[in-house]
Amino acid sequence: MQSKLSVAIYGASGYAGYELYRLLKRHRDVEIKHITAETSAGKRLSELFPTTDDVKVVKNEEVNTAGLDAAFLSLPHGAAKSVVESIAGTSKDMKIIDLSADYRFDDAEEYERWYGRKHTSPDFLDNFVYGLTEVNREAISRARFVANPGCYPTATILGVHPLLKGKIADLSEPIIIDAKSGVTGAGRKPEVRLLFAEVNENVSPYNIGYVHRHTGEIEQELKKVAKSDLRIIFSPHLMPITRGMLNTIYVKLKGDIATPELTALFTETYSNEPFVKVLGGDSIASFHHTMNTNLSVISVKRVENSPYAIVVSSIDNLGKGAAGQAVQNFNVMFGIEETEGLL
Amino acid sequence: MQSKLSVAIYGASGYAGYELYRLLKRHRDVEIKHITAETSAGKRLSELFPTTDDVKVVKNEEVNTAGLDAAFLSLPHGAAKSVVESIAGTSKDMKIIDLSADYRFDDAEEYERWYGRKHTSPDFLDNFVYGLTEVNREAISRARFVANPGCYPTATILGVHPLLKGKIADLSEPIIIDAKSGVTGAGRKPEVRLLFAEVNENVSPYNIGYVHRHTGEIEQELKKVAKSDLRIIFSPHLMPITRGMLNTIYVKLKGDIATPELTALFTETYSNEPFVKVLGGDSIASFHHTMNTNLSVISVKRVENSPYAIVVSSIDNLGKGAAGQAVQNFNVMFGIEETEGLL
Amino acid sequence: MQSKLSVAIYGASGYAGYELYRLLKRHRDVEIKHITAETSAGKRLSELFPTTDDVKVVKNEEVNTAGLDAAFLSLPHGAAKSVVESIAGTSKDMKIIDLSADYRFDDAEEYERWYGRKHTSPDFLDNFVYGLTEVNREAISRARFVANPGCYPTATILGVHPLLKGKIADLSEPIIIDAKSGVTGAGRKPEVRLLFAEVNENVSPYNIGYVHRHTGEIEQELKKVAKSDLRIIFSPHLMPITRGMLNTIYVKLKGDIATPELTALFTETYSNEPFVKVLGGDSIASFHHTMNTNLSVISVKRVENSPYAIVVSSIDNLGKGAAGQAVQNFNVMFGIEETEGLL
Amino acid sequence: MQSKLSVAIYGASGYAGYELYRLLKRHRDVEIKHITAETSAGKRLSELFPTTDDVKVVKNEEVNTAGLDAAFLSLPHGAAKSVVESIAGTSKDMKIIDLSADYRFDDAEEYERWYGRKHTSPDFLDNFVYGLTEVNREAISRARFVANPGCYPTATILGVHPLLKGKIADLSEPIIIDAKSGVTGAGRKPEVRLLFAEVNENVSPYNIGYVHRHTGEIEQELKKVAKSDLRIIFSPHLMPITRGMLNTIYVKLKGDIATPELTALFTETYSNEPFVKVLGGDSIASFHHTMNTNLSVISVKRVENSPYAIVVSSIDNLGKGAAGQAVQNFNVMFGIEETEGLL
Repeated sequence: MQSKLSVAIYGASGYAGYELYRLLKRHRDVEIKHITAETSAGKRLSELFPTTDDVKVVKNEEVNTAGLDAAFLSLPHGAAKSVVESIAGTSKDMKIIDLSADYRFDDAEEYERWYGRKHTSPDFLDNFVYGLTEVNREAISRARFVANPGCYPTATILGVHPLLKGKIADLSEPIIIDAKSGVTGAGRKPEVRLLFAEVNENVSPYNIGYVHRHTGEIEQELKKVAKSDLRIIFSPHLMPITRGMLNTIYVKLKGDIATPELTALFTETYSNEPFVKVLGGDSIASFHHTMNTNLSVISVKRVENSPYAIVVSSIDNLGKGAAGQAVQNFNVMFGIEETEGLL
Repeated sequence: MQSKLSVAIYGASGYAGYELYRLLKRHRDVEIKHITAETSAGKRLSELFPTTDDVKVVKNEEVNTAGLDAAFLSLPHGAAKSVVESIAGTSKDMKIIDLSADYRFDDAEEYERWYGRKHTSPDFLDNFVYGLTEVNREAISRARFVANPGCYPTATILGVHPLLKGKIADLSEPIIIDAKSGVTGAGRKPEVRLLFAEVNENVSPYNIGYVHRHTGEIEQELKKVAKSDLRIIFSPHLMPITRGMLNTIYVKLKGDIATPELTALFTETYSNEPFVKVLGGDSIASFHHTMNTNLSVISVKRVENSPYAIVVSSIDNLGKGAAGQAVQNFNVMFGIEETEGLL
Repeated sequence: MQSKLSVAIYGASGYAGYELYRLLKRHRDVEIKHITAETSAGKRLSELFPTTDDVKVVKNEEVNTAGLDAAFLSLPHGAAKSVVESIAGTSKDMKIIDLSADYRFDDAEEYERWYGRKHTSPDFLDNFVYGLTEVNREAISRARFVANPGCYPTATILGVHPLLKGKIADLSEPIIIDAKSGVTGAGRKPEVRLLFAEVNENVSPYNIGYVHRHTGEIEQELKKVAKSDLRIIFSPHLMPITRGMLNTIYVKLKGDIATPELTALFTETYSNEPFVKVLGGDSIASFHHTMNTNLSVISVKRVENSPYAIVVSSIDNLGKGAAGQAVQNFNVMFGIEETEGLL
Repeated sequence: MQSKLSVAIYGASGYAGYELYRLLKRHRDVEIKHITAETSAGKRLSELFPTTDDVKVVKNEEVNTAGLDAAFLSLPHGAAKSVVESIAGTSKDMKIIDLSADYRFDDAEEYERWYGRKHTSPDFLDNFVYGLTEVNREAISRARFVANPGCYPTATILGVHPLLKGKIADLSEPIIIDAKSGVTGAGRKPEVRLLFAEVNENVSPYNIGYVHRHTGEIEQELKKVAKSDLRIIFSPHLMPITRGMLNTIYVKLKGDIATPELTALFTETYSNEPFVKVLGGDSIASFHHTMNTNLSVISVKRVENSPYAIVVSSIDNLGKGAAGQAVQNFNVMFGIEETEGLL
């Protein structure tokens, strides 16, 4: 490739934004033109993070979108929308990958239900493709706007997809997702509950049952795969770990399918995927399988003498759960080797 | 109390054995006469643990059981049996609290199924009372031999007991227990999988489904409470935490009972218990609620628009899950104030 | 003891204040009458910490000092002074133990130098005794006002005291203190630098050399012991650990004293101290030696073929470094067994 | 480059060996032909580590050295020697990078003093170049055999080099190195002291003073730089952290040089180095500055009103402290871009 693609990263003072910076810095076809952070504008990146990179951080409005090929938005929910609304029209050729939840819902009402605020540009929702690469690769490759999925939805959907696609889940019972997340998933906010001494040596369930914001996003996408109504129970737990995610998923099955067949089904489903790995034998996915990677590592087993299967689905919440998948989608959108910058 | 009760601690080189030592050292009615550790016999306790207590560790056979009021056994499964068999007859007045699984089962066959070895003294099983204090206090107070429960069973049974007792669980679906344990629960064994660098920044599910040894113990006890057959799915996860345990339990309910009524049921059930606390409002139990205590802290909620309840049950695996409950049982057996040494 | 001593804890929303609450709750001769926290007044303690204790938190001004025997102040530097100024006169019989730095200096100018603000009640400094129990026990037993030492000074002074007292330190070179502290020493402030993801898997030196506020306090007290001028270099490091502290101290020696004699000197110096333990042989103090205790554990060795000794001094920063020592001082001030509530 | 360089990794079951595998897998000019691990031979790499890479692990003797361009040895001290002795003669064109200490000393007697065993091939010592890239780049580029430095020596030498080279250190006092290391530096050995529950929430000094094996290596290399005799005091501390290293180094200075001049000296010294970064202003190096990189990040300050300087030198013990530097040396030895595979 002769010339590099010019990109901007909006919101580089958060953990996902900084991870984007680290990944894109190593990407051979990318030149990072701007990185922004509203409250830290004017500082150097080395003042925000333990890096020696002497890069200037600017305000969102200082970005010159004219020459940009792509913008990555790693902004708080709500804030992403205003930036999209203001920059989308400035450059017809610029593609946007939004890591917030602002354009993940098909329906503005669902957004409003789960995020508790009016959607200010509901008509724009249709322009966005839901960016779970393995599920929507085709549409992503043609998209100008991609809504990058949440971390919990990514781990869950990849973990359940083969069962729903294969029509072997008994959806009369809810799919139960017991999720464990590293603390960077909660963002870089100065709150007492996120202090080291509060998180260390602790496991904290929060927003369990049917209340966490990702619940709606997960159900929306799973229903599309299943082509059927279904119900989930979703229980996230905060772990004393910086990054990573592991969802233990309990699914009732219809028929009498054993572990080796389940594993074969998963392996077959993802056989051409560079970033989804299915464990065989007795191996069970763990945080370490995916840490600092863009991988999704999955294991599945049928519970002995029981109609239930247990899927364990691991991703790095900052990798496949955020910045990594954003770069993967970027590669797909620009026809670059999908693994570039991610191995 | 005029004279103190003389006790021996068998197996003080493990985490639970050392915790017993620390608790009993502070107990006003106890004098520790002997502490044993087979392979470390001859050493001082300060050579085994970061303590300045200059106490001698002896071999099991060096214990003079003649003057003992009680023996605490914190030995590997299998090893406990041989000690019980050899010391039970030496002193009629000595009571035994065994922290191993060797006498927890009502039925030797169940033991053999889950522990994969013949039980060498099956007739002795009947002499032991299952030591979940809140459930069997009366029997424990009259017992000479108490089989202290496992950590996972303790957290699970206390968490599900009110629902089963109240006959509001729909047992046509399995009770799903997603358990998270601190690493001391795995013992103090020099194995690669327990090294710091393997456990740190990791969450590892292991023996999930219907294979972990505690599965049988949990089902045995839950069936007694429910007076009914039932099935569990049990998925333990190793946490990067030294001590603590939290079980997230999914139970299908029969009727239409809301969160406040569930909380009231739990609160009522445990209203006279010094060591079981039920959280109200939106509070959810966490590791920190019970760390370094003998408490069991429980929260319960009805999932929105769903027949399922989620119980979160937290204990310290070395406290209420092992040494703490052993001391609590000791207090009950000797008619001492139940909280002595435990507050 | 017939009636209990009534106490108030000012500032119970911080880590040291909450530790005071936990220790005093178990103290047999104490009744906690009030606990305060300015911004959280009106809440229950269970809303501030993972406890099930349903205790009300009030404003400082709501405390009725009339019936109080003692007040513990665990307030920010500066804030303590105003409370002392306002309550000291309200009840002649009430003793005050202040955990802040406000009354630790003999000289208001030194306070102003290190804390960067005017001291508003310099005349009051003389009323306070510096509360390092092992050094000033006699004066503390007669004091009405005690300034509880900082955590770094406590670990350092106890570690160096025998060398200075014994006149064997060569003070022509500075005493170099490389200090490692658990993160609760930094307080419970919602700051980005204290977030889990910033502290975890990290070691951060801060305020190294001759700038940390405790430098002045350490030099003041060491000079008194040495009866000589001296200079320290003090380099604190933030550890990814909740509580604990370990100072590695490099001291040049005058003569040719070997490790066994150094150990004997330390052992002799602290032979009657219930809370100072000197390790012998090759044992070196670690965080685990003192965690969750009021102990100070010290090891000392002469460097091979070198005039330097290395002292390793460990305390729990919330125990002997704050709340534990405050309770120890309280016991001394009221003629209670010194270890009460602390074993 | 047309064809890739063929390499073997000896000892891939340890942490440094596995890190070598991960780095070399991403290296564009390398093909990994063999990975060995004596006791795990016959297994797949995915059975040893949480990876999905299905690579076979063989015995040392199964390696076909004929076609190899280079061998990386990540074997225990002592074991490396026997492999070097057996493979060095089999292929004249094969270069060897040894990560053990077996060939780091100029003098077999020094090796024997610090490692407590006879050196079996002392004559071979002269064939090896000490592989601290920034110091010996020229010699490394011409070498067939490179002895990769220890982690502590790497961090220390890079931190002190400018002061010694600049002749501004007053070597009448020892250089005091207070070192903090992540636990992977101790290897992947199933020992109780390395278990999670022993290391977590702990800081443990070990082999402090003048006894740790790296002491001799550090002194040997520092003397060469200083062209003078000198003495160090070296105190390593085990941190509850998987990877990383930070040495806080206290050096007495001769003249009156201030912090900005010191920083300028360091910056100048390393101005052309891709992997050494000097922090300016008030920034102090931390573990996070170098984690998961091949960087060495250094800060230096003059202590206020004191002839001492404090250097803080951070590396990743598995990166620049082991596998990273080995790859850097490999690049230098083969004339490849020095940063290849390391950014």
